[in-house]
Amino acid sequence: MNIGILGTGVVGQTIGTRLIELGHNVMLGSRLANNEKGRAWARVQGSQASHGTFAEAAKFGEILFNCTSGMGSLSALEFPSKSDLTNKVLIDVANPLDFSRGMPPTLTVSNTDSLAEQIQRMHPLLRVVKALNTMNVDVMVHPERLHGPHDVFICGNDDLAKNTVTEILTDWFGWESVIDLGDISNARGMEMVLPLWISLQRKLGTAYFNFKIVK
Amino acid sequence: MNIGILGTGVVGQTIGTRLIELGHNVMLGSRLANNEKGRAWARVQGSQASHGTFAEAAKFGEILFNCTSGMGSLSALEFPSKSDLTNKVLIDVANPLDFSRGMPPTLTVSNTDSLAEQIQRMHPLLRVVKALNTMNVDVMVHPERLHGPHDVFICGNDDLAKNTVTEILTDWFGWESVIDLGDISNARGMEMVLPLWISLQRKLGTAYFNFKIVK
Repeated sequence: MNIGILGTGVVGQTIGTRLIELGHNVMLGSRLANNEKGRAWARVQGSQASHGTFAEAAKFGEILFNCTSGMGSLSALEFPSKSDLTNKVLIDVANPLDFSRGMPPTLTVSNTDSLAEQIQRMHPLLRVVKALNTMNVDVMVHPERLHGPHDVFICGNDDLAKNTVTEILTDWFGWESVIDLGDISNARGMEMVLPLWISLQRKLGTAYFNFKIVK
Repeated sequence: MNIGILGTGVVGQTIGTRLIELGHNVMLGSRLANNEKGRAWARVQGSQASHGTFAEAAKFGEILFNCTSGMGSLSALEFPSKSDLTNKVLIDVANPLDFSRGMPPTLTVSNTDSLAEQIQRMHPLLRVVKALNTMNVDVMVHPERLHGPHDVFICGNDDLAKNTVTEILTDWFGWESVIDLGDISNARGMEMVLPLWISLQRKLGTAYFNFKIVK
């Protein structure tokens, strides 16, 4: 399958590399077509990999991942043409974290709104599914690296899109437990867990952990 | 030990009842001395139980629990005299949830501040420890009712106070894993997890669950 990833940072590169290992074709998109990180990644990955602009990656992908920094997501999503986004599933991995005032970061949007909702409002025909934003990127694509079962949350307004994302999470990445929280407004809670995640990372001295819901 | 609990709702009553079972003396405090819920609870619980005003409960307790509704916590903490709060440990269980605009509730304070920090700033000599705000009240005092290990988070500026609270959680309530996140600013993350908790409660159809950190 052709996958378009918006963002050439460590999240986009790690997900892209995993998708290539799984046999897919991946284009990383960035603001500028000659982005050095995108070009270097594509050179190493070989023939299944390419890089281009946000608009080109959105056009290329049958499924899209938003792996831009949260503060840059909305401006990145201004570049693709509406027709290249219509009816496509976009997996929104980003968190609206503002590091400009030092550590720990704050959220640029929270409580009464979320980044995922902003993206969904901006592109009503895009099928936005929030997922994978509550763990380190290596854990996203290698959940088996933690010891014992743990959970990934998803939410979105389109049930078929959530079915697609659930298959990607389980059949491609190996997740054993996917918890569908409901419509896209549940992204508020998923994004607002980040301050706790950051406290835990500092306390535990590692990013290799995740939440498990115990009943 | 004499314990003062601010709040006569289900959280205050449940924690109070558990503390009485454990052999302690408990006073529930409310805005009015003749609060019907406080009086009814004390009548049922017997000689170890009493009820009074917020000021009387704060004076009575060697250790205090804040079990008021989050929107009423700051005004409740205006009643006790400063001398009755000085150097005492206050376990802040409350969440600053605003239900006035319907479900799901929003947070009255979040992201750059928290209820626990507001309380700590209001009473600098009170030793505020945020704890137990991320699970149902029955799970707070009976963690063994869930299946398998799970975690309770604490934070606060006073290490000795956190040691005291950790002993209460482990030796009194039976918690096996207490994660100290650091200073009181970590209460932001602990309180901001509530929207996810509420989504999970609706999804799972039960309040009997909790978070476990898997490494």
